[in-house]
Amino acid sequence: MGEFALIEEVRRRCSVPRADVLLGIGDDAALLLPRGGNELAVSMDTLVSGVHFPHATDAFDIGWKALAVNLSDLAAMGAEPAWATLALTLPAIDAGWLAAFCDGFAALAREHRVALVGGDTTRGPLTVTLTVHGHVPAGQALRRDGARVGDCVLVSGVVGEAAAGLACVLGSALRRAPDETDLAYLLERLNRPVPRVALGLALRGIASAAIDVSDGLHQDLGHIAARSGLAATIRTGALPPSAALSRVGDEAQRLRWQLAGGDDYELCCAVPPDRVADAQAVAAALGCVLTVIGHFDAGSGVHLIDAAGATVPSPCGGWEHFGT
Amino acid sequence: MGEFALIEEVRRRCSVPRADVLLGIGDDAALLLPRGGNELAVSMDTLVSGVHFPHATDAFDIGWKALAVNLSDLAAMGAEPAWATLALTLPAIDAGWLAAFCDGFAALAREHRVALVGGDTTRGPLTVTLTVHGHVPAGQALRRDGARVGDCVLVSGVVGEAAAGLACVLGSALRRAPDETDLAYLLERLNRPVPRVALGLALRGIASAAIDVSDGLHQDLGHIAARSGLAATIRTGALPPSAALSRVGDEAQRLRWQLAGGDDYELCCAVPPDRVADAQAVAAALGCVLTVIGHFDAGSGVHLIDAAGATVPSPCGGWEHFGT
Repeated sequence: MGEFALIEEVRRRCSVPRADVLLGIGDDAALLLPRGGNELAVSMDTLVSGVHFPHATDAFDIGWKALAVNLSDLAAMGAEPAWATLALTLPAIDAGWLAAFCDGFAALAREHRVALVGGDTTRGPLTVTLTVHGHVPAGQALRRDGARVGDCVLVSGVVGEAAAGLACVLGSALRRAPDETDLAYLLERLNRPVPRVALGLALRGIASAAIDVSDGLHQDLGHIAARSGLAATIRTGALPPSAALSRVGDEAQRLRWQLAGGDDYELCCAVPPDRVADAQAVAAALGCVLTVIGHFDAGSGVHLIDAAGATVPSPCGGWEHFGT
Repeated sequence: MGEFALIEEVRRRCSVPRADVLLGIGDDAALLLPRGGNELAVSMDTLVSGVHFPHATDAFDIGWKALAVNLSDLAAMGAEPAWATLALTLPAIDAGWLAAFCDGFAALAREHRVALVGGDTTRGPLTVTLTVHGHVPAGQALRRDGARVGDCVLVSGVVGEAAAGLACVLGSALRRAPDETDLAYLLERLNRPVPRVALGLALRGIASAAIDVSDGLHQDLGHIAARSGLAATIRTGALPPSAALSRVGDEAQRLRWQLAGGDDYELCCAVPPDRVADAQAVAAALGCVLTVIGHFDAGSGVHLIDAAGATVPSPCGGWEHFGT
C-alpha cells in the first residue's frame, strides 16, 4: 500500500459528511465554512507511542484515544466539535493496523459528527497528532481564566481510574491485583476515554471556567487557579469515590491516582455557588455525576485539606513530558 | 527547562499579534475569529527528522521550513495565512536548539503575520507537525479540480534546485562538484524555501487550478490533471532554466531534478490562454517569473514532450513516503 492508497483508506473509513465541509481530503488544504456569530476553537494534541500509550496498545484504542483527548479539549471550552486533521506517522504500513486505527477513530468521530478533512501521512516512529476545530457562540467559551472568589470546584465522573489502569499495564505494585472485571474496567478507562462533549456544551452559561483533566486533577485545577489569579482548595474526602480504585489501591495510592493521575479526560470546572444545582442538573440529564470537591479563594496555588480541615501533603506532581 | 517553560519560550519567541486571535496559547483551545464572507483553508504537514530533512539540518532552518511547507499549501489555495498550531516532538530539550528553531519559525511567521495560537510539546523522535489556517473569500479558492481543456500549465520560479541541494547533502554523484557559491545557493533552496503566498493571492480570479510543487512537478501536476479529469503535457524544453543545475548536473540529472525532485514549493497552476499575460504580469509585479511549460488536454496522465514534439520518457516518480 502506497501513501495515496493509505490516504484513500483513511478517507474512506473515517468519512463523516458535514455541510460545512466544502472541500475535504485531497487538495492542498481543506475548505471549511465557519459558523456565523461563532468563534472557532482550535486544539492540537500529539500521542507518541511509548510515551502517551504503551507500545502494545490496540490500534483501535489508539485511534479512539487520539480523537478523544482532542475532543476533550473542545469539551473543556464548551465548543461543538466539527472538523479534524490528522498527522499520522507510521514506521511502516500495516493494512490491518491501519483499518483498526481508522475504525477506532471513526467510531468516536461518528458519535460526535467530526469530519476528518485533511492531514498528512509520514514514515517514522508511531506518532498521532490531531488538530480539532469546534464552533462556540461568540463570548460563550469556557476559559480557564474566568473563576471567581467563592466559586465551587466541580469535577465530572470519577478521576484516577485511568492512572490505575496504567499502573496495571505497567505491572506497578498494587494493594491487591485487580480481578478480571476490575482490570477490564480500568483498562477501558485508560484506553477508551469518553470526552465530555455534551457536558461542556451544557455548562456554557453556568460554569465560569473549565479545564479537562488530562495531566492530573491537582495540576490541571492549578491552571484554572493560576489563570484566574486565585487559590483553589480541594477537600480530599469529597473526591468522587471509585470502588475499583479502593479495591486495587491503598489510600495513598488512591489519592495519588485521583490527584496526580492523568488521562481521565473528565471536566473540572468553576461554578458559582448559586449555579451548582443547575450544573448538577444538566449533568444528571446527561447521565453524568458532577461532584463539588472544593472552592476558589483569594490567593494562589492548589491546597488540599482533609475532612477535619487539616492540610494534606500534595502527592507527586502531574504529568509533565520533560520533567522539571 | 520543563514543559511549561518550553511552551512559554515558544510563545514568547514566536509572538505575532493579530486582532482575530481572541485567545492564544495557554487554554484548552485557542479561540479564533473567522472572517465574514470567507472560507477557512486548513492544511497540516509533518516533517520527520531523517525523512523530510537531514538529521544535521540547522534548527533555524527546520523551524523556517516547517512553516514554509505549510504556508505553501495555503498559497496553492490562494488563502491568506492567519493562524498556526505546532506539535513539536523532541528527544530532549536543548535550549539553544529550541531558540534557533523558534527564531526560524518566527522569521517567516512575522513576514506573513501568522500567529502561533496553540499546539503540543511531547517527548520522542524529532518531529514537527503544523496545522495552518488561512482566509479565502467564498468561492475564490484555487482548487486542484478547476483546470479546463486548453488551459496552459505554468510554474513559478525554478524547480529542481532543492533536489539538487539534497543531492549535494547526500553526497550523490554529480556531473561536477558545486563551487562554494552554487552549494550555498542550492542548500538555501533546500533549507529555506520561500512559500509563494503573495503569488497565490494574486492568482485568484486568474488561475483555474493550482498546486504547490512539494513532491515533484510531474507528480504534483498529475494531481491537477487527475482531479480535473484531464491530461497534462509538459514541454521539457520549456522548463525554467537554472544555471546552478546545469553546472552540477548533466542533462538527465537536471530533468530528473526538475520533474521528480520535491521540496521546491513553487506553484504550478492552470491558466486559460487569454489570462496568461495577466498571470505573468501579476507575478512580475511580485518579482517572480511565471513560465508556461505546457497545457491541458482531454485525456489523462502527465505527458512529456521535447522541443520536436517527441515523447520524453518519464523520470522516476515523485516523493512518496512509503514507496509503492
